[in-house]
Amino acid sequence: MIKVGIIGAGRIGRVHSESIQKYVKGAEVKAISDIKVTTELQTWAKNLGILHIYDDYQHILQDPEIDAVLVCSSTNTHAPISIQALQAGKHVFCEKPIDADVNKIKSVLTEVEKSGLKFQVGFNRRFDHNFKAIKQQVLAGKIGIPHIIKVTSRDPDAPPIDYVKVSGGMFFDMTIHDFDMIRYLSGSDVTEVFAVGSVLVDPEIGKAGDIDTAVITLKLANGAIGVIDNSRKAVYGYDQRAEVFGSKGAIHINNDTPSTAIFSGEDGIIAEKPKYFFLERYMQSFADEISSFVDAIINDRPTLVSGDDGLQPVLIALAAQRSMQQQRPVSLNEIKAEYNL
Amino acid sequence: MIKVGIIGAGRIGRVHSESIQKYVKGAEVKAISDIKVTTELQTWAKNLGILHIYDDYQHILQDPEIDAVLVCSSTNTHAPISIQALQAGKHVFCEKPIDADVNKIKSVLTEVEKSGLKFQVGFNRRFDHNFKAIKQQVLAGKIGIPHIIKVTSRDPDAPPIDYVKVSGGMFFDMTIHDFDMIRYLSGSDVTEVFAVGSVLVDPEIGKAGDIDTAVITLKLANGAIGVIDNSRKAVYGYDQRAEVFGSKGAIHINNDTPSTAIFSGEDGIIAEKPKYFFLERYMQSFADEISSFVDAIINDRPTLVSGDDGLQPVLIALAAQRSMQQQRPVSLNEIKAEYNL
Amino acid sequence: MIKVGIIGAGRIGRVHSESIQKYVKGAEVKAISDIKVTTELQTWAKNLGILHIYDDYQHILQDPEIDAVLVCSSTNTHAPISIQALQAGKHVFCEKPIDADVNKIKSVLTEVEKSGLKFQVGFNRRFDHNFKAIKQQVLAGKIGIPHIIKVTSRDPDAPPIDYVKVSGGMFFDMTIHDFDMIRYLSGSDVTEVFAVGSVLVDPEIGKAGDIDTAVITLKLANGAIGVIDNSRKAVYGYDQRAEVFGSKGAIHINNDTPSTAIFSGEDGIIAEKPKYFFLERYMQSFADEISSFVDAIINDRPTLVSGDDGLQPVLIALAAQRSMQQQRPVSLNEIKAEYNL
Amino acid sequence: MIKVGIIGAGRIGRVHSESIQKYVKGAEVKAISDIKVTTELQTWAKNLGILHIYDDYQHILQDPEIDAVLVCSSTNTHAPISIQALQAGKHVFCEKPIDADVNKIKSVLTEVEKSGLKFQVGFNRRFDHNFKAIKQQVLAGKIGIPHIIKVTSRDPDAPPIDYVKVSGGMFFDMTIHDFDMIRYLSGSDVTEVFAVGSVLVDPEIGKAGDIDTAVITLKLANGAIGVIDNSRKAVYGYDQRAEVFGSKGAIHINNDTPSTAIFSGEDGIIAEKPKYFFLERYMQSFADEISSFVDAIINDRPTLVSGDDGLQPVLIALAAQRSMQQQRPVSLNEIKAEYNL
Repeated sequence: MIKVGIIGAGRIGRVHSESIQKYVKGAEVKAISDIKVTTELQTWAKNLGILHIYDDYQHILQDPEIDAVLVCSSTNTHAPISIQALQAGKHVFCEKPIDADVNKIKSVLTEVEKSGLKFQVGFNRRFDHNFKAIKQQVLAGKIGIPHIIKVTSRDPDAPPIDYVKVSGGMFFDMTIHDFDMIRYLSGSDVTEVFAVGSVLVDPEIGKAGDIDTAVITLKLANGAIGVIDNSRKAVYGYDQRAEVFGSKGAIHINNDTPSTAIFSGEDGIIAEKPKYFFLERYMQSFADEISSFVDAIINDRPTLVSGDDGLQPVLIALAAQRSMQQQRPVSLNEIKAEYNL
Repeated sequence: MIKVGIIGAGRIGRVHSESIQKYVKGAEVKAISDIKVTTELQTWAKNLGILHIYDDYQHILQDPEIDAVLVCSSTNTHAPISIQALQAGKHVFCEKPIDADVNKIKSVLTEVEKSGLKFQVGFNRRFDHNFKAIKQQVLAGKIGIPHIIKVTSRDPDAPPIDYVKVSGGMFFDMTIHDFDMIRYLSGSDVTEVFAVGSVLVDPEIGKAGDIDTAVITLKLANGAIGVIDNSRKAVYGYDQRAEVFGSKGAIHINNDTPSTAIFSGEDGIIAEKPKYFFLERYMQSFADEISSFVDAIINDRPTLVSGDDGLQPVLIALAAQRSMQQQRPVSLNEIKAEYNL
Repeated sequence: MIKVGIIGAGRIGRVHSESIQKYVKGAEVKAISDIKVTTELQTWAKNLGILHIYDDYQHILQDPEIDAVLVCSSTNTHAPISIQALQAGKHVFCEKPIDADVNKIKSVLTEVEKSGLKFQVGFNRRFDHNFKAIKQQVLAGKIGIPHIIKVTSRDPDAPPIDYVKVSGGMFFDMTIHDFDMIRYLSGSDVTEVFAVGSVLVDPEIGKAGDIDTAVITLKLANGAIGVIDNSRKAVYGYDQRAEVFGSKGAIHINNDTPSTAIFSGEDGIIAEKPKYFFLERYMQSFADEISSFVDAIINDRPTLVSGDDGLQPVLIALAAQRSMQQQRPVSLNEIKAEYNL
Repeated sequence: MIKVGIIGAGRIGRVHSESIQKYVKGAEVKAISDIKVTTELQTWAKNLGILHIYDDYQHILQDPEIDAVLVCSSTNTHAPISIQALQAGKHVFCEKPIDADVNKIKSVLTEVEKSGLKFQVGFNRRFDHNFKAIKQQVLAGKIGIPHIIKVTSRDPDAPPIDYVKVSGGMFFDMTIHDFDMIRYLSGSDVTEVFAVGSVLVDPEIGKAGDIDTAVITLKLANGAIGVIDNSRKAVYGYDQRAEVFGSKGAIHINNDTPSTAIFSGEDGIIAEKPKYFFLERYMQSFADEISSFVDAIINDRPTLVSGDDGLQPVLIALAAQRSMQQQRPVSLNEIKAEYNL
């Protein structure tokens, strides 16, 4: 039985805690820490059977019984806490992104290498039933050699402007998942990025220095072409589709809906909207990514989202941002050279 | 080039005329007759290149150049005109139903037999692309041995009450197509019928002695079970679906729509309603049934809807009507015995 | 916190145990009993946090801390155990069917009435997301007045012949869910049944005195017509569809699939088969029916599947069986009269 | 009755001839010309009721009875023949593209302007039922302000290498339709193009100096972003989809299939492949574009595909080609400046 400590009791820390206690076989949450331990948090943790609640995550790192740590704290602390946890001999599951600063990511990856411990990044969509179905069929050779990989990713509504101001920009906060998905589905690295962005949803987002609509074209090392389209607001809900087209066919996924019910009436034939947002849509994948992480520890297998898988989308996001600003395609090599990668 | 005479210039007579002149290779309409020859009819015929317009169909029967006759006059004249046409040596395409009176149908079939001429009944749906697709896959053995055959057939709106009063009842006027379809898709004769009917759409239909909603269960000679559901009014349009389920799988068809467009909005994911009614939905099949008839003449092949195919659905309709009235399953043998069949 | 005792640790008893421990808020399993307590069962129960394991269910009935009992033992013990549990002051959730013997069901219902305790029958499909979606739209008036209610229910494979011999027949073992669904979706009682059955899947089933294929037509008290089609074997998997058609439109549900992935290749456009069988398809509904039962206890609300809801499908199954044997429609009143109902 | 002369009796010239004779009300083909008048052509024309067959198109231009000319000859003759026809006082329908040389297009447009005659370019997809359905809903404001316009356009198989060598490149020969579609669906001009192309289908295409796979991003004057993905070979058939996403929702179209039949079997749920290629898929649109052209003449309305609509896609194709070669986004203004546009 793997004993887990969770650092950060915000939304995603709680999602993981509940997943582990309810669904993840072979693991249990021994302790959780948060900089603010409220009565509400204590009650919630007790009901879940989590026995230790700390306001200092060092207690988790120092507990010799704890095998693995989930880093669910604020993004700017991901890198230092991951490094400390690895140094304390803990396997680490780190929420995405590791950091927006490539040098900090490099430090984490160096520590991962040195420690020989398991390290997994929270790209949960790789564990979603739909995206996994594409991936498995691509791996099985059903579509032959991939030629075009398309990802549509649109949120049901824009985040608050205060969030936009600190998020690091849409490419880092939202498209990062899609950059990862292009790599995952194609099984190939990205070599060049061209990004076009606009402010079409809300002018306030533009005033905050960000965009809300984008199309990004990506050249891949295996010769295939990727393309992502993003919007911060699809009034019909969370739009999460993908398609891989290749020499033997194509495979695409549609959105999940709350039910399969279809109403036929005077106004048309009406199906339900997609599940509203990521918690509705991806809940199962959060449990499955942790199960996979636990499995990697127990059976000493590589994690399915490695440190490099955490680094690459950040490099792509940097290239996308520069491409949009300078209105030219940007090679990943250009970015990598700046970080001696 | 087969020369055709059309008897009856109502809606269906004109549909066939236009089909032949425009789409049917190897045939042309030489003459048309109607008991009422208006100026409008003359203009319409002339524009189509139909040279002869008569108020007496005998002129058509007496024209030695005319090879084939389409009987599109009122139902009660189908049998006598078909017999006369056969006796005049013409191949006959007769609109459905041949007659509601089994004895009159028998007379026609006897004449067909005697003449050795081609005779086809207007069950156009057998020539529709969707129903043909099911049939071909069933024939190809894709679903194995048929177990259950389902037909959903719902009109977009009830006919005028005046029509209801003279139509012979829903089973003869509307379900007759579905009875034929069960036979066509299953490749088997019907042996027993159980019918349940209700007046749920419009009480006036009930006052006129008819029903507007029905479910009919049919036992087939090959052991399979058929089931039809009917309504005189589906507010979302003409609902024409079918399914054949068997030992190796199932095949079903959905409705045709004007376009494949799907709108995703705040109220759901909205596809178009089915094509409105039979003219929109089945126009191509009207041309194709005549092409097939012409082909049978030219190449001396059996027609794809024989005289017996015209008789059987009438027997089934009689059994359905009796079943509903007497609230019991009715064997086709019971009906046949009454007509020495 | 409602404390629950589970009687019977077979497949469904374990499904409910796991559901309650993991997903059902406000309830926990205190004890489980089975006539055979193995080491495997003890380990399984301990891992779930179930502290007491008995080989005699009387220990559960005698535990004053236990509020509610789930009767998951073999069908022939459902009625006596339910009665004893009610007499011991426990709320009862009884797996379907209560019994095949109407008189035994009547005894249970009498005890329910007398006790004033909650009683719910295990028609889990009412809690399935798809069937609930239809029901809610029907209740909201979206389809107007129901005219036709259709249920397609086909298993992926026939049960073992040994099971067929003791199951009480397909109508009691399998169609019983569909009879309940017709009542649930229509909001109306059944007044008359006509059933046609065949042996098309496996002749061994026929030798065992049962059928494997059926179409059942049902007249409903509200004037609507229901129709069910059943097969013991659909090679493409568990086929669970339904449609309610009414004056303002229709609503239908399709099968759930493991993913939304669609492959486009040389052989066509290929979607996944339905989820394989009831455990894959209905797992969530098992948790939801218990949550609803617990909610009924806590908030003193009527259960959503009452004792009468457990009785009616048995009456319909009796009528269907007689209809098939005697080849005539059978009125529910005829059956009811025999049991003074 | 508009009298039409058709110049060029190749595949598209014959498609238009048949359409007009059979479906286009208010027009008839009086004459057809081809540089090679074979017996086969004469028979074909006679059967269609076309009375005059010439080997010199000047006879058509000199016939005072002919109102309109369809220029269906080889691409390099489109411009000079169009100009001569306009000078002869004929309305002109010119197949796409007008020319690959912008200056020649300019000469044609100047002549159109001077003549005051109708001029329409053969972008038939604008008249396809699916694309029209999107356009109408966009015009009706259903999706609000367009943000992203996506076009997927993939052929079922690559053309012969000999054709590739003279086609002018994929952007001019195939993508030209998609460039037009982006303009049509968005209702906006293109301002900037970025194109990525690869040789993934057949290395011979690369040797011939062309590409077979492409993704093109387009900035539009109204702020929206367009994206096209192309392949010369989709093994599942002609893939013609589009989507317009905007502030109030999205609308997309799927492919047309020969029937709606869906087979459920052990290997999955299998729908038919798209209609094979452009003749199967777009036949109706060829008739409808000519009907629209005839309507523009009769009612003196602007044609729905103007001379400028013929010019713009060529400018976009030039920008796309340069973008791909120079690996940078190319502004339409840069191209226009070179032609004083």
